Amino acid sequence: MQDKTIAKLLKSEKTHVEVTVRGWVRSFRSNRFIALNDGSTIKTLQCVVDFENFSEELLKKVNVGAAIEVKGTLVESQGQGQNIEIQVSKLTILGEANPEDVKLTILSPKKHSLETLREQAHLRIRTNTFGAVMRTRSKLAFAVHQYFQKNGFNYMHSPIITGSDAEGAGEMFRVTALDARNPPLDEKGNVNFKEDFFEKEANLTVSGQLEAETYAMALGKVYTFGPTFRAENSNTSRHLAEFWMIEPEVAFNDLDANMDLAEDFIKYVINYALENCADDIEFLENRLLEEDKTKPQAERSEMKLREKLHFILENNFKRVSYTEAIDILKNSAPNKKKKFKYIIEDWGADLQSEHERFLVEKHFKTPVILFDYPANIKSFYMRLNDDGKTVRAMDVLFPGIGEIVGGSQREERYDVLLEKMKTMNIDKEELYWYLDLRKFGTAVHSGFGLGFERLVQFTTGMSNIRDVIPYPRTPGNAEF
Amino acid sequence: MQDKTIAKLLKSEKTHVEVTVRGWVRSFRSNRFIALNDGSTIKTLQCVVDFENFSEELLKKVNVGAAIEVKGTLVESQGQGQNIEIQVSKLTILGEANPEDVKLTILSPKKHSLETLREQAHLRIRTNTFGAVMRTRSKLAFAVHQYFQKNGFNYMHSPIITGSDAEGAGEMFRVTALDARNPPLDEKGNVNFKEDFFEKEANLTVSGQLEAETYAMALGKVYTFGPTFRAENSNTSRHLAEFWMIEPEVAFNDLDANMDLAEDFIKYVINYALENCADDIEFLENRLLEEDKTKPQAERSEMKLREKLHFILENNFKRVSYTEAIDILKNSAPNKKKKFKYIIEDWGADLQSEHERFLVEKHFKTPVILFDYPANIKSFYMRLNDDGKTVRAMDVLFPGIGEIVGGSQREERYDVLLEKMKTMNIDKEELYWYLDLRKFGTAVHSGFGLGFERLVQFTTGMSNIRDVIPYPRTPGNAEF
Repeated sequence: MQDKTIAKLLKSEKTHVEVTVRGWVRSFRSNRFIALNDGSTIKTLQCVVDFENFSEELLKKVNVGAAIEVKGTLVESQGQGQNIEIQVSKLTILGEANPEDVKLTILSPKKHSLETLREQAHLRIRTNTFGAVMRTRSKLAFAVHQYFQKNGFNYMHSPIITGSDAEGAGEMFRVTALDARNPPLDEKGNVNFKEDFFEKEANLTVSGQLEAETYAMALGKVYTFGPTFRAENSNTSRHLAEFWMIEPEVAFNDLDANMDLAEDFIKYVINYALENCADDIEFLENRLLEEDKTKPQAERSEMKLREKLHFILENNFKRVSYTEAIDILKNSAPNKKKKFKYIIEDWGADLQSEHERFLVEKHFKTPVILFDYPANIKSFYMRLNDDGKTVRAMDVLFPGIGEIVGGSQREERYDVLLEKMKTMNIDKEELYWYLDLRKFGTAVHSGFGLGFERLVQFTTGMSNIRDVIPYPRTPGNAEF
Repeated sequence: MQDKTIAKLLKSEKTHVEVTVRGWVRSFRSNRFIALNDGSTIKTLQCVVDFENFSEELLKKVNVGAAIEVKGTLVESQGQGQNIEIQVSKLTILGEANPEDVKLTILSPKKHSLETLREQAHLRIRTNTFGAVMRTRSKLAFAVHQYFQKNGFNYMHSPIITGSDAEGAGEMFRVTALDARNPPLDEKGNVNFKEDFFEKEANLTVSGQLEAETYAMALGKVYTFGPTFRAENSNTSRHLAEFWMIEPEVAFNDLDANMDLAEDFIKYVINYALENCADDIEFLENRLLEEDKTKPQAERSEMKLREKLHFILENNFKRVSYTEAIDILKNSAPNKKKKFKYIIEDWGADLQSEHERFLVEKHFKTPVILFDYPANIKSFYMRLNDDGKTVRAMDVLFPGIGEIVGGSQREERYDVLLEKMKTMNIDKEELYWYLDLRKFGTAVHSGFGLGFERLVQFTTGMSNIRDVIPYPRTPGNAEF
C-alpha cells in the first residue's frame, strides 16, 4: 500500500519523518538524485541516494521509466526548485525499464512530437504534458458534477444505443449483432433488422437531449454527461467520432435563464480548474508558449493560457442577437476587405468560426452569446419566435475556438412542434413520446449542449482534440 | 425562471412571504387543495385555492398532470402531513392535461404494474416510485465521483468503441458504418472491414479495465465510470445490454488494499444515499413492504430496505478464501439436503448466487469478500498465486443479490502473463500495449468493477434492473 502520495508529501510541513514512496523514475542525475513521479502531481520528488550505501548493480537499474520504492527521511532540500527531498535509506526496484527498450518508445528522454505520442497512447500518459491534461480533465469532469448537484440537478444517464434516429444531429453508427457477411433478409431482400438483437435497426446516440427533456418535465432540473458519437469522416483537429457531452435541461427556464445558466456553469468549472489544477495549468501555459514559438506570428495565441481563462471569468458574456451580429459582420473591416473566407452578404447566413472569433476577439472583446437565429438553419425542436422566422437558439462563443455551447428554448406548443416536424419530414410516429411531453402538462423549458473535449481543450490550451481524450476515435483509428 | 423549488420551500422556516412555484398537479381535492410536485422532492406542496376567487373555467383545467404556476403566501399548514402550504392568490395554467387523454396513460391516478410503467418509460419518471429511484440514482452517481476525487483518484474516460476484443468478458456488439445489405468484400469473400469507418472491425466495450490499467501505471489512482455493453440474449431481471460500470484501478495496491478500497467505497456511497435521499428511501422502503405483501412468504425480503443498508454500513466485510468457502458450503445443510439447485461437490466449482447468498445471509450474517479463486474459472489477467492453481481474485457478496463487486490483483509479471495468454489463446500482438505495462516499470496493481445498476437496485430495493435505468436496453428493446 502506498503510504503517501508525492502530492501530499510536497505539501507536508513536517520534516525528519520516515516515509515510503513508490513511483516511476523520471531522471537519475550524478548517480545521486532521483526525480520520482507517482502521477499524483506534475512535480517530482527528489530522492537523494548516497551511492556508497547501495550496490552498483542496484543503482544500474535506476533507469528512466523504472518503478521503484524508496524509504527514507523527509528533509528540507538544499537544492533549487523544491522545498523538501528524501534522504534514501532503502531502495527497491519494483519493475525495471531496460534502456535499450525504452529508447524505442516515447519514454526516452528527448522531445517527441504530439503525433508520435498519439501512436503510443498507452505510454503518452507518462509524459508531463499528458499527465497535466488528464488530471485537469478529471478535475473539470468533477466540477461539472459538483456544479449541477449543488444546484439541485439530477444526473441522468440517457441511452447510448438508440432505436430513434430522428434528431438528425449527424451521421450515426449502426450497432448490430447480425452476421456481417450474411445478414438475414426480409421478403423484399432488405436486411431484416427484426432478427437483430434489438429487433430493429439501432444506432449510437448523437445526443441525449430529447430523452433529457422527458426527465426535465418530471424532475425539473436534469443533466446528462455521457459519450455521444458521429460517423462523419472528418479528419480534423476539432472532430472525434466518440466524445463526451454535457446536456443540462431545465423545466420552466426560458432562453434568458438558459443563458444565465450557461454563463454561470462555465465560469464555475473554469474557476474550479484554476483553483485545483494550478501546477498543471502553469505547466501547460509554458508548454503552449514553447509551442507558439515554433509557429508564425499570426498563428500564435494572443493571450497566455491563464490570461484566457481569466478573460472568461472576469467578463460578462455579451448577449447579441443574430440580426445585430450580421449587421456588425457585414460592416466589419475583414468583410469589406474580403479577408473572411466566407463573406457575409445577407441575413440568414450560417456563421463560421472566423466570424464568431471576430465578434469575440476583435469587436466585443468579451465572450459572446448569440441568440435568435434564423429558423431554417436550426433544429426542429427550437422555439419559434413571434416573427415567424427566428428561433430561440443560442450559441456561446469563446476566443480561439468559436462556439463552445449550443442551446435553445424548446418548442413547447404541441401544434407548432407538429407543424415543424411535418415541414422537416420528421416522423411523428417515431417521436410520439417527445410529442407526449407537449400533450401532458407542457411548459417552457430550455437546455444546452457542451462538448466536454472542447472545454478541456480550452482549459489546457491543447490545439488538437485528439490530445485531450485518452484513446481518441477518429476515421481509421480505434486502437487500444 | 423558477424562484424556489418545492424541496427548498418545504425546508424554509419563514412563513408569510410571497412565493412563486411551478410544477405538475398530482391531485386536486374538494376544488380546494392542489398537491403540486416539481420533481425536486418526492413530497408535494399543498396549494390552497379559495374557489370563490377563481373562475370555474380555470379550476376545471387543474387536472392531474397539468403544469401550473401558483403565486401566493407561504403559511403554516392546518392540515396533516405538511408543515407549510400556500394560500394561492394567482393561478396560471401553463400546460393542460386532458383527462380523457391522461386516462389512456400511466399518469391516470390508479395503480399500474411496473411492467406497464416500463412501456411508457417517458412518463413513468412522473410517478413517485421512479422519481425516488432516479433521484437516488443521481445522488449515488455523485457519491461515486466524490469518493474517488476526495481520495486522489483521476476520473478516466475509457473508450466506448474498441478495436480490441481480447478481454473475453462477454459477447460484443459490432459498431459499423458499412452498408448492411451489401458490405464491401475482400478477395476471399469476407466482409472487408478495412473499408469500414475505423478500418477494422470495431465493437462496443465490455470493460474499461485494461485501458484503466495503462492510466493507473502513470497517474497512480484512476477510476472509470461509463457505459459498457453485452450482446447476450439474457432476458432476465438481472441483465441489461447497456449498463454503467465503475472500475477503479490503483498502482501499488495489492489484493488486501483492493479489498479495503472496495469496502470503504461501498460504505461511503450507501451512507451518502442514506443521508441525502432520506425521503426517497423511506418511500421506497414502504413501496417494497407493499410489494412484498403480494408475494409468498419465502420470497419476501428478510430485512426492510434501510435495515439492509445499515447492515452493510455496520458490519465488517468478512474475508474468506474460496477454499474455506467451498468447505463451508460442502458441509452446509442445504448442500447435504440437496436444497441447492447446484450441489457443491468439489473444489473448483463456480459459485452460484444461491451459494453466495447462503454464505452472506445464513452462515456469516455479514457482507463477505471471497478471494483466491481457482485460476481456471477466472480471467487471464489475474495474478497467479504461488500455489500455481489459484489467482488473487475477489468478489464482494451482498445479501439478496450475491456478487456486487468483482476484482483482482493484476498479473504484473511479464513472463507469467505472456504464458497465461498463450494458454488461453489470447493474441499477444493485439494486446502488445497491455504487455508493455509489464515491460516498462511494472508494479503490483489492483482494481475492481462494480455494476452501477446493481448498486442502485440494492439501494432502492427495486427487484428488476430495468426499473433503475431511465431507458433500459434489452433483447428486442431499444425504444426511446
